[in-house]
This record gives sequence, C-alpha cells and structure tokens, in this order.
Amino acid sequence: MNKNGEAEKKQDYRVEKDSIGTKDVPQNVYYGVQSLRAAENFHITGLNMHPEIINSLAYIKKAAAITNCEIGMLDKKKAKAIVQACDEILEGKLHGDFIVDPIQGGAGTSLNMNANEVIANRAIEILGGEKGDYSIINPNDDVNCGQSTNDVIPTAGKMTSLRLLKNLKKELLRLHKALCAKAKEFDHVIKMGRTQMQDAVPIRLGQEFNAYSVAVMRDIHRMDRAMEEMCTLNMGGTAVGTGINADEAYLRRIVPNLVEVSDMEFVQAYDLIDATQNLDPFVAVSGAVKACAVTLSKIANDLRLLSSGPRAGFGEINLPAKQNGSSIMPGKVNPVIPEVVNQVAFNVIGNDVTITMAAEAGQLELNAFEPIVFYCMFQSIDTLAYAVQTFVDNCVTGITANETRCRYLVENSVGIITAICPHVGYQKAADIAKKAIRTGESVRSLILKEGLLNEEQLDHVLDPVNMTEPGISGKEILMANDK
Amino acid sequence: MNKNGEAEKKQDYRVEKDSIGTKDVPQNVYYGVQSLRAAENFHITGLNMHPEIINSLAYIKKAAAITNCEIGMLDKKKAKAIVQACDEILEGKLHGDFIVDPIQGGAGTSLNMNANEVIANRAIEILGGEKGDYSIINPNDDVNCGQSTNDVIPTAGKMTSLRLLKNLKKELLRLHKALCAKAKEFDHVIKMGRTQMQDAVPIRLGQEFNAYSVAVMRDIHRMDRAMEEMCTLNMGGTAVGTGINADEAYLRRIVPNLVEVSDMEFVQAYDLIDATQNLDPFVAVSGAVKACAVTLSKIANDLRLLSSGPRAGFGEINLPAKQNGSSIMPGKVNPVIPEVVNQVAFNVIGNDVTITMAAEAGQLELNAFEPIVFYCMFQSIDTLAYAVQTFVDNCVTGITANETRCRYLVENSVGIITAICPHVGYQKAADIAKKAIRTGESVRSLILKEGLLNEEQLDHVLDPVNMTEPGISGKEILMANDK
Amino acid sequence: MNKNGEAEKKQDYRVEKDSIGTKDVPQNVYYGVQSLRAAENFHITGLNMHPEIINSLAYIKKAAAITNCEIGMLDKKKAKAIVQACDEILEGKLHGDFIVDPIQGGAGTSLNMNANEVIANRAIEILGGEKGDYSIINPNDDVNCGQSTNDVIPTAGKMTSLRLLKNLKKELLRLHKALCAKAKEFDHVIKMGRTQMQDAVPIRLGQEFNAYSVAVMRDIHRMDRAMEEMCTLNMGGTAVGTGINADEAYLRRIVPNLVEVSDMEFVQAYDLIDATQNLDPFVAVSGAVKACAVTLSKIANDLRLLSSGPRAGFGEINLPAKQNGSSIMPGKVNPVIPEVVNQVAFNVIGNDVTITMAAEAGQLELNAFEPIVFYCMFQSIDTLAYAVQTFVDNCVTGITANETRCRYLVENSVGIITAICPHVGYQKAADIAKKAIRTGESVRSLILKEGLLNEEQLDHVLDPVNMTEPGISGKEILMANDK
Amino acid sequence: MNKNGEAEKKQDYRVEKDSIGTKDVPQNVYYGVQSLRAAENFHITGLNMHPEIINSLAYIKKAAAITNCEIGMLDKKKAKAIVQACDEILEGKLHGDFIVDPIQGGAGTSLNMNANEVIANRAIEILGGEKGDYSIINPNDDVNCGQSTNDVIPTAGKMTSLRLLKNLKKELLRLHKALCAKAKEFDHVIKMGRTQMQDAVPIRLGQEFNAYSVAVMRDIHRMDRAMEEMCTLNMGGTAVGTGINADEAYLRRIVPNLVEVSDMEFVQAYDLIDATQNLDPFVAVSGAVKACAVTLSKIANDLRLLSSGPRAGFGEINLPAKQNGSSIMPGKVNPVIPEVVNQVAFNVIGNDVTITMAAEAGQLELNAFEPIVFYCMFQSIDTLAYAVQTFVDNCVTGITANETRCRYLVENSVGIITAICPHVGYQKAADIAKKAIRTGESVRSLILKEGLLNEEQLDHVLDPVNMTEPGISGKEILMANDK
Repeated sequence: MNKNGEAEKKQDYRVEKDSIGTKDVPQNVYYGVQSLRAAENFHITGLNMHPEIINSLAYIKKAAAITNCEIGMLDKKKAKAIVQACDEILEGKLHGDFIVDPIQGGAGTSLNMNANEVIANRAIEILGGEKGDYSIINPNDDVNCGQSTNDVIPTAGKMTSLRLLKNLKKELLRLHKALCAKAKEFDHVIKMGRTQMQDAVPIRLGQEFNAYSVAVMRDIHRMDRAMEEMCTLNMGGTAVGTGINADEAYLRRIVPNLVEVSDMEFVQAYDLIDATQNLDPFVAVSGAVKACAVTLSKIANDLRLLSSGPRAGFGEINLPAKQNGSSIMPGKVNPVIPEVVNQVAFNVIGNDVTITMAAEAGQLELNAFEPIVFYCMFQSIDTLAYAVQTFVDNCVTGITANETRCRYLVENSVGIITAICPHVGYQKAADIAKKAIRTGESVRSLILKEGLLNEEQLDHVLDPVNMTEPGISGKEILMANDK
Repeated sequence: MNKNGEAEKKQDYRVEKDSIGTKDVPQNVYYGVQSLRAAENFHITGLNMHPEIINSLAYIKKAAAITNCEIGMLDKKKAKAIVQACDEILEGKLHGDFIVDPIQGGAGTSLNMNANEVIANRAIEILGGEKGDYSIINPNDDVNCGQSTNDVIPTAGKMTSLRLLKNLKKELLRLHKALCAKAKEFDHVIKMGRTQMQDAVPIRLGQEFNAYSVAVMRDIHRMDRAMEEMCTLNMGGTAVGTGINADEAYLRRIVPNLVEVSDMEFVQAYDLIDATQNLDPFVAVSGAVKACAVTLSKIANDLRLLSSGPRAGFGEINLPAKQNGSSIMPGKVNPVIPEVVNQVAFNVIGNDVTITMAAEAGQLELNAFEPIVFYCMFQSIDTLAYAVQTFVDNCVTGITANETRCRYLVENSVGIITAICPHVGYQKAADIAKKAIRTGESVRSLILKEGLLNEEQLDHVLDPVNMTEPGISGKEILMANDK
Repeated sequence: MNKNGEAEKKQDYRVEKDSIGTKDVPQNVYYGVQSLRAAENFHITGLNMHPEIINSLAYIKKAAAITNCEIGMLDKKKAKAIVQACDEILEGKLHGDFIVDPIQGGAGTSLNMNANEVIANRAIEILGGEKGDYSIINPNDDVNCGQSTNDVIPTAGKMTSLRLLKNLKKELLRLHKALCAKAKEFDHVIKMGRTQMQDAVPIRLGQEFNAYSVAVMRDIHRMDRAMEEMCTLNMGGTAVGTGINADEAYLRRIVPNLVEVSDMEFVQAYDLIDATQNLDPFVAVSGAVKACAVTLSKIANDLRLLSSGPRAGFGEINLPAKQNGSSIMPGKVNPVIPEVVNQVAFNVIGNDVTITMAAEAGQLELNAFEPIVFYCMFQSIDTLAYAVQTFVDNCVTGITANETRCRYLVENSVGIITAICPHVGYQKAADIAKKAIRTGESVRSLILKEGLLNEEQLDHVLDPVNMTEPGISGKEILMANDK
Repeated sequence: MNKNGEAEKKQDYRVEKDSIGTKDVPQNVYYGVQSLRAAENFHITGLNMHPEIINSLAYIKKAAAITNCEIGMLDKKKAKAIVQACDEILEGKLHGDFIVDPIQGGAGTSLNMNANEVIANRAIEILGGEKGDYSIINPNDDVNCGQSTNDVIPTAGKMTSLRLLKNLKKELLRLHKALCAKAKEFDHVIKMGRTQMQDAVPIRLGQEFNAYSVAVMRDIHRMDRAMEEMCTLNMGGTAVGTGINADEAYLRRIVPNLVEVSDMEFVQAYDLIDATQNLDPFVAVSGAVKACAVTLSKIANDLRLLSSGPRAGFGEINLPAKQNGSSIMPGKVNPVIPEVVNQVAFNVIGNDVTITMAAEAGQLELNAFEPIVFYCMFQSIDTLAYAVQTFVDNCVTGITANETRCRYLVENSVGIITAICPHVGYQKAADIAKKAIRTGESVRSLILKEGLLNEEQLDHVLDPVNMTEPGISGKEILMANDK
C-alpha cells in the first residue's frame, strides 16, 4: 500500500530542473519549474495576470516562432506546434496556467518564462511528447529563441496598453456623443453660471454640457497621441538592446511578423537600447490618462453640485436614480455614478505617481520595475473605461433639467448686474449690486428707480439669452437708443 | 411546454422590490435586490471585497443585533438568528454572496446593504422562512437597526485596517529580527562606507545591517501609532453623527458590545459628527505605512547596490538565488526579491496620493469616497506585509558577505585619508588624496614619503576598525605618540 | 591708468584656493571660494536659503565651537571668535552672505561650507585678520571641527523643521479657538445636514463647526508627534555615523551643548549610522502636515459650499468680504480665503510626494537629496501656517449665519422622513418620501393624511432639535404616546 | 510740529475706495486699493510674481486696449497711454508694483487687478493726472474693458508657460547635442552592460550615451506637443466663456491683436466656455514635463552609478569635479550636478500632483485654483531648464571614460556566456556560468576544456564588439566553421 501510494504520488508530479535545482511540478499543469518558483517567491496581490497581456505574449511568441522558422533557426514542426499553442492561448485557453503574480521582482522574467513554459509544454503535447520533456521543445532555446525578457515584456506591455487604450477611447467617444445630445436637449435652459461657486452671470445648461463634450474630445485626441507612444517596440533588442543572439534577419522580420499576427500597427524602435531601458512612454501615456481622469472627475463634481438637493441644494438637474441611496434615510437617492467616476479618477492619479516613480527608478540597461508599471497602467485604463461606461449608461443619458428652477434662480439673481456694467460703469454697478443683496430688492427695479436705464434698454440688456452670447457692445445699444 | 418553462423560470428567481422598482433575484442567493443593482452599476475592478471587511461587517451587525436586543428594539428570536448568520460569515461562509465591487459609488451603502441582505436572508432561512420574505427579518429595519452606512462603513474600514496593520507589524518584527541577526553575523566585516556612492570612510557591514534594523524598529513604532488612529469608532452616530434614530442606550452599548464580540480594543469617538465625515485618520495611517515603504525601499535599493556584480559591480554581499534571472542570459541571478519590495513601495506611495485626494474630497457631513480609500489602504498594507514576508524568508536571512572583497576595497581606497585629516589638516589631506587618485599610489605610502606621520602613528590612525568608531581625538594620539 | 585700474581690481578681489583650483572672491564678502563655486553650479530656484536654517547652522557651529574648546580641540580665542560670529548670525546679520541655492547637489555640503566660510571669515575679522586668511581660522579644520555635512545638515534640517512646526501649531491652536467660538455662537442654528450633497437629516450649524474644531485638534496632536520625530539628532556621527574624527568626549557633549545654546529639546540618536542615512522622519512629518492640510482643505471646501450663492447657492453662511471678487462682475464677493487654504493644501500634498521620493532615493550611508526635502518641508510648514493665519483672521472669525434660510431649508426638506422611519418602517417611509418629492406636498401632511402618526407624535418626532441628538427610541415614544 | 507731521503723513498716502471701503495707499506707488487688500489677505510665499507672467499681462492689456480702440470702446488718447504703460512693463519697469503673492485666493483676480491698477495709474500719469484719479483712466472700465479675470488669467498662464517651455526646449536641445557628442566620443569603449545592476552582456559606452540622447529627443518632441496645448486661448470669453460684455467685433479681433503684439502663435478656443473652466491642458503639459524629468533623472542616476568609486564603485566614467565634495573627507568629489538634476526631477513630480489636484478641483464655470497651478508649473519648467543648463555645462560635456577599467570588467565577466548560448543551449551555458562564478575560472577556458567550441569559434563568438551588435546567427557561424 505504502509503495502504491508512493507510486501514485510520483505519477502526480514530474520533476523539473533549472539552475537553482530540481522541483516537483504537478504532472497535469503546463507551467514549469521556473513559473512555480516565481509563484512561490511572489505572493503579493494574489491576483492573476491581466488576460490581455497573456494574449500579447501569445502574439509575440507566435511571431517569434514564425520568424525563427523563416530564418532557419527553428524547424517547421516545432514552429507549427508553438504557433498552435499560441493560438490556443489567444482563444482563451491555458490562461489558468499563468500562475505568476502581476507584481513580481525582475523585469517580467517570471512572466516571460511562464509563457515560455506553458507554450513549450503545450507544444510538446501537440508533438506527442510528455509535459516536461524539454528535449522536444525547450522553453528557453526554442520558444524564447532570439528573444529576451527585456524585449518581450516591454513589447507585451505596450501591445496590451494599446488595446486597452482603444477600448477607453471607444467609451470616451460614447460619452462625447451622450454629452452632445444633452447639450442639444438643454440648449434653451437658461440658468445662472457660477464662478467660485458664487452667482456670476447667466449661461445655458446646454452650453455647460457642450463644454463638457469639448473637454472630453480633447481627451480623446490625447488618447490618440498616447496610442502613438505605445506603437514603438524594442523586439529584436534582446538582453540590452544590442541585439545579442538575434540574427540580423530575425531583427528585420520580427516586428513585421508581429504586426501581421496581431493585426495591430507597430514600428521597431529607432534605437533599441533606448527602447529597452526607458519607460518614459508609459509615463507619458499615464499622464494623458490622468488628464482624462481630471476632466471626467471635474464633470462628475459638477453634476453632483448641480443635482444637489432635492430641496436644500442647487437642484438644477436630476440624475437618474439607480439604487437606494441610504440604508437609514428612506427615499434618498445619491449621485453614486459620478462618485464612482471620482474615485476611479483618484486611483488613476495615484497610479500615475506609482508609474512615474517606477519609471524613474530604472537603472542602466533595463528598468526592472515594469511589472508594477503595467499593473497600474492596465488598472488605470481598464477602470477608467468601466467608469465611463457606467457614467454614460447609468447617469449622463438619463439626466433631466429642472427648467423652472433654473430660470427662477436667474431671475432672482444679482449676478445679472454684470450686463449693466458697460452702461453705468463698474463702481456704480457694484453699488447697486450691494444694495440689491442688502435690501432684497431686484436689480432691475433699483436701476429704474435711479433712472440709469429705461425699461426698453433694460429689456434688451437683461434678456437672459442675450447675456449668454457676445453681442453688439453696450455703447452701440445706448447710442442706438439715444437716437 | 411553454408554461412549464415559465414555471421553471419562476422557481429559479424571486422578485424583490425596492424604491427603484422590482427586480428578479436568483432564488438561491443570499444577496437581494439592492446588492444586485449595485453590482450592475459598478463593474469597475471586477474583484471581490476584501474578506476581512466582510468579517468586520459581520462583527458590527452581530454587535448591533445584540445591542438592539438588549434595549428592546429587536426581539430575541430575530436577534439570535442574525447573530448566527454573522457567526457563519465569520467562519468564512457566505462570502461569495458579497457581490459588490470594492470601488463603488456612495460611501459604502452598496456594501452595507449587501451585508444587510445576506444576513437577513440567512437569518430568515434559520427562522424557517423563504429567502426574500423580509417580513420575517428586514434588512433595513432589523439588520441595520440603529445603524447607517455612515457609521457602519467607516467602522468596518477601521476594524479591517487595524487587523491588517497588526499583521504588517508582525512581519516587520520578523524583518527586524532577521536584520539584527545579520548585524551580529557581519559585525567584523570591514568595508568601505559610501556617501553619494563615492568612497567615503570605512564602516562595518554589521553596522549597516544594524542601521537597517533600527530604521525598521522606528517604523514598527509608527505602526503602533497608526493602530491608535484606527481605534476610534463612530458607531452610534448613524446618518450624520447626530445619532438620529439611535436610542441613547444603544449609543452607550454598541461600542462595548463590538469590543466584546470582536475581541479588539476600540473607543467611541468623542465627537461622532467629526468621526463620521473626516477621513484624516486614514491619511495619517497611510502616511505611516508610506514612511515604512520608504525605509524598506531604501534598504532594498542598498541590497541591490551592494550585491551588484558578480564581477562588474560592488560585489560586497550575495543575495540568495531564488530563481533564474534571465530567459536569455544563462546563470544570471537577479535581486528579484528586493525588486519586488521596491515595486510594492512605489505602489504604496501612489496609493497614498489616492487616499489623500479621496479624503480631501469629503463634503459636509460625509465623505462619499471611503470605498477607494479602503481599497487602496487594504492593498497597501496587505501587499507590504507580503513583500516583507518574502523579503525576510527569501532574501535577508540568506544574505552572505564577500568578506575578502570588502576588505580589499577598503585597503585600496583613498577614502581612508579622512582619518589623516585631524593630523595634517583638510587642505594637505586633500592634496594627498588627489595625488593618490592620480598616481595610483597608496595613501599610506604617500604620507610616509612626505614624512607627515610615522609607521606607528599610521598603524593606529589607519586601523580600519578604529575608523568605524569614534575614538580619542587625533590630537591626543599624536601627543601621546610624541612623548 | 591701466595699472591703476588693475590695482583697484586686485583690491576688490581676494584669491582663494580649494582642491579644484583658485578663484577670485569679492574682497568684502564673508563667503569664500567653495560657496562661490556652489552658487555658480546651482542656479536653480534663484531664491535664498530659509533664514531659519541659517540660524540653525549658527546654533550648531556655536555648540561645536564650545564643545571643541571644552575638549581641547580648539583654543579659546578661536572658539570665542567663532561663537561671536555665530551670535551675529543669530541676530540676523550676515544672512546675505549665504549665497547658495536652496536646491543644490550634494547633501548640503555647499550650505555647510557656506556657513563654515562665513563664520570663519567673520571670526578672522574679529581676531583682527583679513578675510580669506584661513591660517587664522580655517573653515574646515576649525569651524567644521568634529563635524561633517552629513551630521550638520540633517541636524539643521530637523532644528528648523521643529521651530516651524511650533509656529504652525500655534496657528492651529488659534484656528481651533476660533472654530470653537463659532460652534458656540451657532449652536442654536438648525439646518439640513447633507451627505453626498443630498439633503439628509437636520443638524445644527454649531455642531458642524464643533466637528471642524475637533478635527483640527486631532491635527494639533499629530503636530506634537511630528515634533518628536524631529528631536533626534545625529550630531557626532560625522561622515557616515561612525563618528570618524570625532572625539568620544565631543560625541558626549555636542548634543547637550546644542540643547543649551538653542534652548530646544533634543536627544542624540541611539544609532548614528541610521540617523545619518535615513530621512523617513521627514516623510513621517510631511505625512502629518499633509493630514492637517487635508483637514483644512475639507473645511475650506465646506465653507465655500455653505456660502455658495448669494441667491443661487446653499447660502447658509456668509464669509466676510475681504476684497472685490471680480474685475468684471460688480459686487461679487468670492471665498478667496478658503480658496487659498485649498491651494496651499494642494501644494503641501504635492510636496509630500517630492519629499517621499527624495527620501526613498537615499543610497547607502547617506541621503544626498536633503536639500529638496528641506526646501519642500519648510515651504509646506510655512505656507500652511500663513494660510491658517489668514484663514483665522480674514475668514473664520467673521463668518455669520443665515439663520432664517437654514431653518427654511429644514422645514421644506424631505430629509426629515428619516426620523419617521423607526415608526413606520424603511419601505413605507421611502414611499412617502418619493411621494413628497413628486407632489411637492410636505412629509408631515402626507403622514397625517395616511394616519400613520398623529399631530402630537409628529410634533415630537419632527422637532428639529430632537433630530440633532440621539434620544429615547421611537418605540418608547410611541409606547409613551399610546398610554 | 505734530500738525506738520500729520500733514506730511497725509501727503504720503492717497485714499482709494472700492466696494469693501476706503484704504490708504502710498502716494508714490502704481498699485491701488485692490492690490493692497490682496497683498494683505495673502501673505503665503512671500515671493514675487514670475516676471514673465507680468509681461504676459502687459501683452494682453496692450492687445485689449488696441482692440477696444479699434472698435470704438476706448478713445485713442486713453488707449495710447495704456499701450505706453504696457510697453514700459515689457521693458522691465513697474514690476516692483506687482505686490500680490503668487499663491492667492480667487482665480487670479488679485493679479489681474494689480495689473489693471498699475497700468491705469501709469497711464493716468502719462496723461498728466495724479495717481488714483480713476476718472482719467479706470482700472476696471478702461484697462480691463471687454475682459474678465477669467479670460485674462488663463491666457496669461498659457502665454507664460509657452515662453518658459521654449526655453526648456532650447536647453534640452543643448543636452541632446552634448549627449550625441559623447556618444561619438565613446563609441569604441567596450564595457559591461548591466540589467538589474547585475552583469549582463557587453555594450559600448557610446551606445549608452546615444540611448540617452534618443530619450531626450523624445522629450523634446513632447515639448512641442505641450506647447501646442498652450496655444489655445479663451480671450473674449469674459466671465464664464459666454462673452458677456464683450462686443462681437472685440471677440474677433482680440486674439489676432494679441498674436501681433506678442509675436507668438495663438488661436482662439473653439469653445470659450470649456476653455475658461478646464485646466486639463496644464495637466497635460505638466505630464509631459514630468516625463522629461523622469528621463533626466534616470540619466542622472546612471551617471552617478557609472562614476561611483573612484576605487570601490563601478568607476567606468569620471564626472568633472566642480566643487569640493565634503567638508570632512578631503579630496572627495561628488556627483553634485546629477544630484541636483534628481532633486529638481523629484520636485517636478511633486508639482505635477499639485497641478493635477488643483485642476481636478475646478467647479462649474471656473477653476479658482489657477494661481497654484501656475506657481507650480512655472517652477517646474524653470527649475528643470536651469537643471539641464548646469547638467550640460558642468557635467555632461566634461565626462571622461575609464576605458581600461571598462574593458577589464568585460574580460573578467561571466556575462559573456550569453553569446555562447545559441551554440550550446541555455542549460549547458548556465552550468558553465555557475562553475565560472564558483571557481573563478574564465568562461573561455571552461568552454575549451569541455570541448564545446574551438579557439577560432570562441574568438568570433566572444569578440566584444560583435557582441554589441546583432549579427549573423550562431547557427550559420557554426555551420560555416563546420565546413
């Protein structure tokens, strides 16, 4: 029995060997000894790798196998098996065998080796071998042929960022469209504009939403530039960008092949040494994503202000009620969707600091802190995209205006005094404003009483719609009236 | 058939109703309509709530049920069922029914209602009812009785932080012990001290490790203070800290009961209004965790510098080899464990910015951004604890010294000229140093040649061990020698 | 003439020499060649050193001279002259001769040498010599005797921070007092509390100001701890903390002497090596200052919200008008004082990141980035103290309440429904709230209509003052009423 | 006498009046009552406004006067006097009368009014009036005609940033040139490349410097985009972007006139409301400046590492000695110039957080936190430009290589094993590497001993220069050799 038990035990594990020594690896898994060591060394987040970086690695390994086969460094049979294994990953298979933690020491060697081992073992299987029999396909010599962690991982990080940025851009375009629709819908709603949260001068609610849409469009343009930053790859640079162990032919073919297999646009870096060691493109992208987060958070703040109330706040707009607002206060509906936009924005801003510090900490031929850069970058882009998605679907599209209240606040405001200013001078206007606030009397009535302008003039000057557009100057109006 | 199909469908779902409307909820789940709406509104991280905040909520709901029962607001049967449901959560059950995203709009209402619904439905079951029959136990009126999201969630956040901080402290104490052991082990290893990475004056490797241990101990003390910040709870304040709907007796009993059920030390806040709206204690705790991250990152940086090489770097110490360092460079062993410490530190520093912004954004009676504060806070503390764990076990304890190289670098150094300074003056010493660097001749030989000190004096002055401790002054030595 | 010109030229400059070479130094200045080189190398901010760090250096150099004299390393005449020069600096003289930029490379060597040179040259003058004749008093051998930049500068940074923190604490105490006075003044003003900027439940304006005062007091306590962090000095550690070139007797005496001359409380670090290389205490202090900034910024945000209007905002309080609010909008008065508090808070938060990064970047025996740490630290503490000062004097003390409006908003609010909840259940209460918002009918009237509570019960339950304090439970009230 | 004294006193002051009340203003100053109030309200930094923003304001006020004159809103005499006053400011005069603190509450109203008052009073003088007689030229009605703080100040901030960015770009171009020169100079210097600070594979020192130059060029391109972000102005939008009180003709002419007087390229914003309230362009610019800071800091870190020593470090390059490195350690020369680059980079990174927070905090029609955004933005750009200047002049251009040591480290390295890898496989190569490290025997000798490659093959494969470029593949070499 004891013997049998041992025999069974042996069947459950295979022994693998690396420079550190030997190690039991579960028989049925595709990862190998190096992945396992890494998983043991780094239990940091307890999370899985982002599925899209796993896919990016599959594209890269596929393109490398094709290239190596083309230049005679890998025989066709091996290459075909590797390509098939990569395709399976791209179909969503084998992801469970990527066991290393997203935050890992080293510049992603653990992740690269995890990919090499999974692909090698699956390819071995395809060729009829037993997992772990690296004489058939070797993770380093075959799957990683012509490559180094130091070109594979930055490339994978850029490919992944690019795909996630595209998705973010798509959501931003939806937001832009939703804001434009609201701008049109609310174009006639006259309301008080506020600066420093003090009553300023009239504006139209539609103008406010239009301004939001314009700001979002600026961010969309920044996303385009951010994507450009991610298009330059250092594949072929191998260990330090000098291309050691990479064949010249490989160097010429690898990026075009990657473009072909991934159907994405990339160019090879002009200087592979620079592209291997410097992560400033990620800082630039994070900066653009952060600028977008700032825009969105500002809009979210505004919507929360404008919908404050229902009775004791600004109360100019209503956000759609998406869930009960309180466990104790019945009927309370809170601006939970804008609030989640704010929170994601704060997280993006914090992640930008992390990314910046990690990029700054690169040393000499490599930045070993890519894992944290990617972890934060993917989180920033993904969560911002999700936040925009819920923002559009569960908030912006359902906003309604409290038109009556908006107009009431304008008509009761002292802020319209500004329009009088060109006609009576700043100091006189200020005196009237102070008096209006003190006495509660309307600005209009005070001006008439003092005989500063007549009814007709006031009708023109104080027309709220006129006040929301630049017009012919006060002087001309008065001169016209004087005739 | 159609009819049957519908009937089957009806059995799989129950219909729940809240202020927003009705909604199908899977029959077999413990969460209810409000949890489900929240899960649909917030798909941001795709992650689960931290298990420890789920446990914290179970403690709170249990303490509240006990308190409400004591003061006659909840009958014994209901209270007993609620307590049992909470105990099951504390045993690790029902966690899968907490379906809301950690990053959620609202100040945690979604999470609080998720807890209320899960506990209510489980308690209903215990009492023999059908899930969803809230006439038996009501999530709001019974489970949430005397409570508000606005006191429950900050309390849960503090309880959770406290437990995580205790764990971090435990790991830091292990690190301190490991560093002290190395300090002792390396106490005799003379090496060059470096300032601004330039050769300075001799130091002992053990002194360096001892300094690390002292810095870590300072962080441990800061953890103690951080834990104090987390001990003050606003339970009983309900919606805005005024205690509306909370009975005076409840207010007096809730915190003592929470202390009893959780076996943790807490006090009720002196001012519940302040404690409900202000998150500065989390900023302070994050600041302390960040200071700790800085210390650890600095140590990690040093270890990477000191172990740089093996041939072309400082090469003074060896870190244990824990995994292959490279997919292309055979035999390369990298400082992956210190590197992961750095990365976690960067993340903690970024999270601190997020926490700070979210705390600053609180408005009036509440800070609605607690979810992101907690998400980042728990991540910072947890990942730092894990990083310290692997740092101790996979790096620090296995460090060895290259004693010969350490001594060689001292003996070849120009930096020992500093010890000569009190005897010949700064300017003369500087001239000798420059000459030594230019010619390659040793400092000792140049001083003898110029007749500045004799052999015996030099033996004393340049004794490397003497140089690593304050001593009797140069003047006295020379005077002694002059006799 | 040419000759005369040259002669005159020669009289205007003296030639000084250091290891780099010789250099003309203006004859009449007290700084020397090393200061001049540093000033030329670092033209970064164009600003002067903070006067308080110049004073700190004078204290240190004075204490060192006294100590060196006591232990026989410096003769009395020299010591006396050095002490006199230091005292003159402490009287505010010679500050103009500190010419190095606050942001400078090196760990403050430029600043330390600037102090050494100014003090040496002034002492030389006192002893009847010519500036530049370092045979009389040598900046390195005499003024810097027993010291290194690496113990002098961290010590000066801590001394300075401590004095600035004391000033900040003083201003915070004034703010606390002003807030307490307002809390008392506004204790009777009933108003709507708001959570997530939505109408919640009643609160008293005085309670809000009291909560602010409690939060500020928590920050004051944190300042005390921050000051403790600054009390531990590494004087005596010299270059790397091993005390090389420092006499044992000097080591024992220097800190007590520094305590005596400065009249401040300090202790010598337990481990001088740690205290020389680690700047985490500054990170901790910056963290505490940042937490304070968060509290203040949150209060400032609230005041801006509460004073929004005058007509189209919350309008619950008035901030004193301190200046015209607009160049175009007459009569507009803006919350400029809270706004400056916000801005300073943002700057403090950014500075915290800088301080953190600089502290993290320390390497081995020294952190060479102290200058930027100090620059940002002093700016944070100083500007925050000034912001608090203007906040107290130009804002908080002059705040008035719009009592009528506050009460009006409560009476029109739906939020008071919460108080009904214990009597009718959450779901019923929610239905009434929704109906009230939809129809505009008052909550009170709807409850009476539905016969849920009678007039007497409602009078009690809806009493706004009762709603701002925990009370006897709803159940008991109703039972009492039932009798 | 008393009476005389009083009379004299009265002559020294003029009384000015605004909405707040009257105030004594020194008779001889050009600023007025509003500037004075602002200076009293905001004593925060104690610093002066940046001279370039004062100049920007002069350009704006000049362009506005010209425009207002063109459209008949300002008579020619007044306009001419205002233009002359503006020109004097642009010549550097009157800057001392800008007395408001750079950190000020309000969105720059204090600064705008300071400009309006100085220009008005100087123009009044030009027209023969007495300072303070605003019936001649009114600061609000004449100088500020058609303008608002809310379009003037963002415009001034952008104009200023643009000029400062141009200067930064100029310095970066100088740095690029200096790095390229070094790349060429060091192209033949073979050295070890290091990844994760561990010996990796050979690289040429010139390749390293070339990579730096490429990274800097990427930053230069980002500066171009940053400048584009600053070119879009909201002049004409007045208070909230609706153009209230601005004549349509003014709106069309103001930006072209500003382009003409300033000789800079600007366009008017497509949506003035958006451009008035959103500061995301500054976040984007700060992000680009920060990315640049990261690149520079990384280069500075590398230079400090490569020049570490002279004896106990990497010692591959020498930085020029620019000042004594230590007050206690004679002959020590420290990398002070790179260190100042690091420190400025840290400051830029912290400022980016401040700018981000301030931009996020904008509310509704205006962002009131422009002053802190500008303060930090100008500081970041200016100090970075100064840092680059000293970096070029006092460091990069003077770097020399220790060619012998560089080659020695390559020849003693185990890292060259990587080149063997394609010929013997990863696992075999790893075994040899481990043996070499353990025994100290050279890689070459071990390979020969084991008969893996012959001398000729080794000569080719291990040629250090070959190792620094991609080549024909190992397979081909071996096949060629096999023939």
